[in-house]
Amino acid sequence: MDTRAISPEPSPWLPFESRRRARDEKREAVLRTAVQLFLEQGYHRATLNDVADRLNITKPALYNYFRSKEDILYECWAMGQERVEDRIAEIESTNENGLATLRMLVRAYAVVMASDFGASLVRFNVADLSEANQKTTLAGKRRIDRAFRGAIEQGIADHSIKPCDVKLTAFAILGALNWIGHWYKPGGELSPDQIADDFAIRLTADIAKPPDRKPPERKPSEKKTSRSVRRK
Amino acid sequence: MDTRAISPEPSPWLPFESRRRARDEKREAVLRTAVQLFLEQGYHRATLNDVADRLNITKPALYNYFRSKEDILYECWAMGQERVEDRIAEIESTNENGLATLRMLVRAYAVVMASDFGASLVRFNVADLSEANQKTTLAGKRRIDRAFRGAIEQGIADHSIKPCDVKLTAFAILGALNWIGHWYKPGGELSPDQIADDFAIRLTADIAKPPDRKPPERKPSEKKTSRSVRRK
Repeated sequence: MDTRAISPEPSPWLPFESRRRARDEKREAVLRTAVQLFLEQGYHRATLNDVADRLNITKPALYNYFRSKEDILYECWAMGQERVEDRIAEIESTNENGLATLRMLVRAYAVVMASDFGASLVRFNVADLSEANQKTTLAGKRRIDRAFRGAIEQGIADHSIKPCDVKLTAFAILGALNWIGHWYKPGGELSPDQIADDFAIRLTADIAKPPDRKPPERKPSEKKTSRSVRRK
Repeated sequence: MDTRAISPEPSPWLPFESRRRARDEKREAVLRTAVQLFLEQGYHRATLNDVADRLNITKPALYNYFRSKEDILYECWAMGQERVEDRIAEIESTNENGLATLRMLVRAYAVVMASDFGASLVRFNVADLSEANQKTTLAGKRRIDRAFRGAIEQGIADHSIKPCDVKLTAFAILGALNWIGHWYKPGGELSPDQIADDFAIRLTADIAKPPDRKPPERKPSEKKTSRSVRRK
């Protein structure tokens, strides 16, 4: 008995930690397959049988990981939301000015949007979720809105962003970003990083106060003269 | 017999033209109610019984106007698409420069997006439509894309718009516009017209060549000098 304890036979079961990890990996594999199918065929057309088939398992085996199809849909959303929130937390901890923060948010959100889990934030219908889950997604959406509005407000306060209608500006920026989830196809002309870099500048161009465009230092009187001359 | 023909008894049936009009009105009333319900509850949750109930008719009566729930969903989309295409045709016939055309397109599309039928262009899942109808919606989406890209291309050619990636620019603008269909609530702070006016400027600000910023007429040689002076 003691010998067995000291030098144990190899167990056919994995140690607990590895088992937990394997389980998490399998769970995520189910979500990755499910989100692909939901995006390809629409949530209502895609069946759990299709998901199971692609994974070489049976439909009942899916219920080891998820309670229902709706549960899977919600978890796909949660994967995308978690990625966005992780990036927001990271970015907000950098203490850059408002414009730089906003550009980092645009960049990060664009990259997530170009992924399947990211697209699930905008391509599925929240009405297909349970009421409790609908509330959670709504709260998640608000946190994203708040991060973007916060950066814009901060930018106006620290003069890196021109005064503007904060809500409408955030809607315009988030709209352009969310649309990526609809049009982006992997393997297209532009990589997610290229789109992200472009959008970070493009979507903030009209509200950014360009630091290098500052007129050269002049006395106010001179400025007035040159302007009135130009008008004539 | 002749007397009857000359001065007929009033018929309990409406004349053909009025009947056709009444039928069209009823058909559109069904669509207006259906689109509201689909937007409120999601296409799959909303039932044709709900639609019929709101209209004080029976579900079978709906089948006088539409073949199926899918048919209704498609016709809601078609109402929105038709409005957009009517406005595009109108705008394209004005022969303004590229920037002005683009701004008119943004304005018109924003107003449609703030309507129920407009929102149906972006809030429903095309996967819920028949294959033939999916193809039609895809073609419709392409016509909208083409109109926006065309205006941008025209603007670059006529120098009202700065050289830019046409596709990405159109995606960014259309994304911001499509998002209106998700966030706009009637009776909010801003009217559809106010949002449209704001977006027409906002979404084109970074690519517009401002006509009033043109440098005053100078000979090319002078221009060169002033530029090289500035560089020093």
